[in-house]
Amino acid sequence: MIRPMSLDEMRALLEQGRVGRLGCVSEGKPYIVPVSYILSGDAIYIHSLVGRKVRALRHDPRACLQVDDIQDAYNWRSAIAFGRYEEIADAGEREQAVRRLLARFPHLTPVESVPVHDGQSSVIVFRLRVEEMTGVCEA
Amino acid sequence: MIRPMSLDEMRALLEQGRVGRLGCVSEGKPYIVPVSYILSGDAIYIHSLVGRKVRALRHDPRACLQVDDIQDAYNWRSAIAFGRYEEIADAGEREQAVRRLLARFPHLTPVESVPVHDGQSSVIVFRLRVEEMTGVCEA
Repeated sequence: MIRPMSLDEMRALLEQGRVGRLGCVSEGKPYIVPVSYILSGDAIYIHSLVGRKVRALRHDPRACLQVDDIQDAYNWRSAIAFGRYEEIADAGEREQAVRRLLARFPHLTPVESVPVHDGQSSVIVFRLRVEEMTGVCEA
Repeated sequence: MIRPMSLDEMRALLEQGRVGRLGCVSEGKPYIVPVSYILSGDAIYIHSLVGRKVRALRHDPRACLQVDDIQDAYNWRSAIAFGRYEEIADAGEREQAVRRLLARFPHLTPVESVPVHDGQSSVIVFRLRVEEMTGVCEA
């Protein structure tokens, strides 16, 4: 049976997930990239090189992160969190976010697999404060 | 090393994939859902119930399908195909598309797991004609 997920279920899915699909609007068109992320409090933290998605999000901060867990055709969950792109410029806050990301992803992951250890890197750290979540599952 | 994918490589990834993430713009915001799809010629075929994504795509047909294959942090591929939403209304064309989808997905799959066997269903079949593709991989 397909049914909407509860807030707790969506939160659990986002906490458990490692790779999500980040969506943004780039030149009027939807754009999606896989990203590693962490959920902390009511915000999602992501790091990235400056590229199409960061340029798009600087222009239009409306973003979403979709996370799913698909076992088979009849057992799956998918949730989507909506929020605004906020680049983390404050050095202390940035360091804290990077430390948390590295703790979860010691080797970092797809599209983002570039060292962020040095303070000089061109890696952006940003957050989406979750404003809305929806999710559906079947089991 | 991270590098752009060739057209052949992107096509191979899309042909091999089973679940992609469909992106659209819903009320100005990016929206993503996992979907089963097939690539046939230069078009991607998808079936769906009428819901938020179909309503959004009827309003703004600009869409994308992102497909990835993530082995680990250093071995992954991700491609995104852009195209316009075209609902398939012609009965013969619709039946052919449904037959192809069912051949590949005998039990159908996430978010779409609703029978499409009957001619009366509220299931929409649509296509994205691929206008542009980009892809990146690391190996």
